[in-house]
Amino acid sequence: MEEILKFELSNEFRERFQHAVDERDEDFIKESLEGVNPADISALLHEFDAEDSKYVIDLLPSETRAEIINDLDEDIRERFLKVFQPDEITEIVNHLDSDDAVDILNELPIKEREEIIAKLDNEEKEANILDLLRYEEDVAGGLMAKELIKANVNWSVVQCIEEIRRQAENVQKLYSVYVVDDNDRLIGRVSLKRIILAGDKTQIADIYEPELISVETYMSEEEVAQVMMKYDLEAVPVVNMQGKLLGRITIDDVVDVITDQAEEERQIMSGISGDVEEDDSIWMLTKARLPWLIIGVVGGFISAMLIGVFEDELLRITAIAFFIPLIQATGGNVGIQSSSIVVQSLANPSAFSDSLAKRLVKVFIVAALNGAVLATLVYGGNLISGGTQNLAMVVSIALFGVVLIASFMGTITPLVLNRFGFNPALASGPFITTTNDLLGLAIYFYTVHLML
Amino acid sequence: MEEILKFELSNEFRERFQHAVDERDEDFIKESLEGVNPADISALLHEFDAEDSKYVIDLLPSETRAEIINDLDEDIRERFLKVFQPDEITEIVNHLDSDDAVDILNELPIKEREEIIAKLDNEEKEANILDLLRYEEDVAGGLMAKELIKANVNWSVVQCIEEIRRQAENVQKLYSVYVVDDNDRLIGRVSLKRIILAGDKTQIADIYEPELISVETYMSEEEVAQVMMKYDLEAVPVVNMQGKLLGRITIDDVVDVITDQAEEERQIMSGISGDVEEDDSIWMLTKARLPWLIIGVVGGFISAMLIGVFEDELLRITAIAFFIPLIQATGGNVGIQSSSIVVQSLANPSAFSDSLAKRLVKVFIVAALNGAVLATLVYGGNLISGGTQNLAMVVSIALFGVVLIASFMGTITPLVLNRFGFNPALASGPFITTTNDLLGLAIYFYTVHLML
Repeated sequence: MEEILKFELSNEFRERFQHAVDERDEDFIKESLEGVNPADISALLHEFDAEDSKYVIDLLPSETRAEIINDLDEDIRERFLKVFQPDEITEIVNHLDSDDAVDILNELPIKEREEIIAKLDNEEKEANILDLLRYEEDVAGGLMAKELIKANVNWSVVQCIEEIRRQAENVQKLYSVYVVDDNDRLIGRVSLKRIILAGDKTQIADIYEPELISVETYMSEEEVAQVMMKYDLEAVPVVNMQGKLLGRITIDDVVDVITDQAEEERQIMSGISGDVEEDDSIWMLTKARLPWLIIGVVGGFISAMLIGVFEDELLRITAIAFFIPLIQATGGNVGIQSSSIVVQSLANPSAFSDSLAKRLVKVFIVAALNGAVLATLVYGGNLISGGTQNLAMVVSIALFGVVLIASFMGTITPLVLNRFGFNPALASGPFITTTNDLLGLAIYFYTVHLML
Repeated sequence: MEEILKFELSNEFRERFQHAVDERDEDFIKESLEGVNPADISALLHEFDAEDSKYVIDLLPSETRAEIINDLDEDIRERFLKVFQPDEITEIVNHLDSDDAVDILNELPIKEREEIIAKLDNEEKEANILDLLRYEEDVAGGLMAKELIKANVNWSVVQCIEEIRRQAENVQKLYSVYVVDDNDRLIGRVSLKRIILAGDKTQIADIYEPELISVETYMSEEEVAQVMMKYDLEAVPVVNMQGKLLGRITIDDVVDVITDQAEEERQIMSGISGDVEEDDSIWMLTKARLPWLIIGVVGGFISAMLIGVFEDELLRITAIAFFIPLIQATGGNVGIQSSSIVVQSLANPSAFSDSLAKRLVKVFIVAALNGAVLATLVYGGNLISGGTQNLAMVVSIALFGVVLIASFMGTITPLVLNRFGFNPALASGPFITTTNDLLGLAIYFYTVHLML
């Protein structure tokens, strides 16, 4: 590990390697990459363009090659695969588990995809891939691999070990053997530990655990992640509606789902659409940011019109304008806090959830407390800094109202979004912030209008 | 699974169960919880207070009891443990792996902790726990469990299987046997699959894989998570600086680290301090939110003073005030977008990172593009809605400047925070938003001052 980490981080090596690639120094490249984990080679190749990477990859054994391609970031891989011939991709696909193979095939144009599938000489692999291509990518069926070891409940341990031997090459990560009945229906599992400790004459029926958590093919990837986290599973079998064993999902794929989800949520909260990263093109970055900025600008325009309606008040007491930022910032902050707390509850459904009425009462009390503290602070601050008592009172009352309304909106919006199937994290994004800004402003100017 | 999920979700069952607990209906509780996964019972108990939960838990076998306590959310568990006697906690600790046992002990007052450790009759467990208590909770040493199977490289497979048998009870989840030399130094691993397929006479030396990824005790939990994700590991061995094997970390604990991190980041971005949830007390929720709201209010006050400085301009052209919200909202949105993209790059260090100068040039170009589009829109909008050409020009120029500055600040702040060891996600939180608001306002009024 230590060596590998050092390998990864050494800038000197990177530079030396870059030089070797530029010079097409085959010997150095082969030698320095020998025995290096494919995941590290993938990380290294992220710094090269497709042509150079292809040159490096071609120097490596075909199995390593497949693993490297499999480890690449999706968007980089798509770029890479364009410089590969169908024959070469076929070879890569041949070396991968069915789920990883399908991920790659899904990134190719349909015509090329079909060409490659037709070229596969392993019939079982072809059947597995065709089966998996039927599923959406974000459900259990799209996450699962077909490679697994299953044993009939009537087998002996020796028969089971024979099956493990037969499939040893296909199933890289083996945790349990799944036990099925004569109809291929999943009825339990045996851990490898149990198989090791069992005598040769033992029957599977005597040692298998009938209680088993499985997921169905149509279950969403978020639900699969929830189930695997809740029960601390390293793999979960996938069954169809009849309970027939179809595949299994391993935790590494689910960890990717979890991190992708977190990233997506942060992007939504930040007002960035699409899956962009800092190293994407300027055009991509601009395109991902502009729509949300325009929403903000439109909101700003409406604000301008709203303030315009109260121009008379503004002419009378210019100081009203001083507190526009304070009112808006507080409304925005309160709204985001409230929605964030609700989004968290929604993401963690195992936690107890009160009834909506109870939740709103609680939100109201918290808002009233926060609002009272802030309003008092602002009132005191206004008087100390020499403001008129009238204006100080108006600003504080409006602020209190804004805190209440923003809390309510921040709480209710993610719940409504969630109910209608949208990502509740949208409620912490610019659209809702803009709406809250407007509401806050309206409350402020209406209070001014009424009281001054 | 299906049954279990249904079990979890059924409101009728919950109500029936609640009733049974109220009535202290022992038979119903025992019967209905028989064979139910402890993780589901934990979820169910989240709805009860400590007294009622204790009553339910006491009806269950002691092993299930330990697993339920282990599965509870940390804050709920702390509340629960207060109603347990030291003897009862000792029994729970006895049933748990060393890492989980230490997690629970860490939640107790020191005196009670020592009392419980002294009561443990299993000497090995006591030694393991004392060893683990030395580590901080957020480093590899604090995440690892001492329970694992290790084999000397000079052993035969039969000896290795004997060791597995001896430890079968202690090591629940077994993926690999770790191979050590005579000095207990980690030198490789053998997968269970290989052990199953090896003949009895095989030597460990002939089948072990010498290449192995391990982590050192002082490595941060974030780094451990990075390593396990990168290499798709279900478990990673932990060694000390001399390479001696000390423990192992399983993926389920790392998944918790990953989700906790994501949640912490969202809270920071939302301006919530501390790890609060919707079901926390009103006092906790208020306390977690108030500090950030006060920062916003202070920012609002400074904004008020800033605008006050330009009161003369405001008196002359009231319409200046109309565009305060537009300027501020855009500055805030741009700042959050920019910092979010940098935070993402920082969280994913394997991706290629350009030099700072190159990054800033790119940020500048993206900002200039976005700024130009927005400024044009606002200019057009202003003219169409009958604004004066002068003011339209001023607003658009200020807006363009704000987009540039907010992009720059949003990019540089997380980098600086990260450099000084702070969480870069702070750069998307209220503190920075407030600073950006002020800067935006200053740019706007200064432009007004210069041009009108």
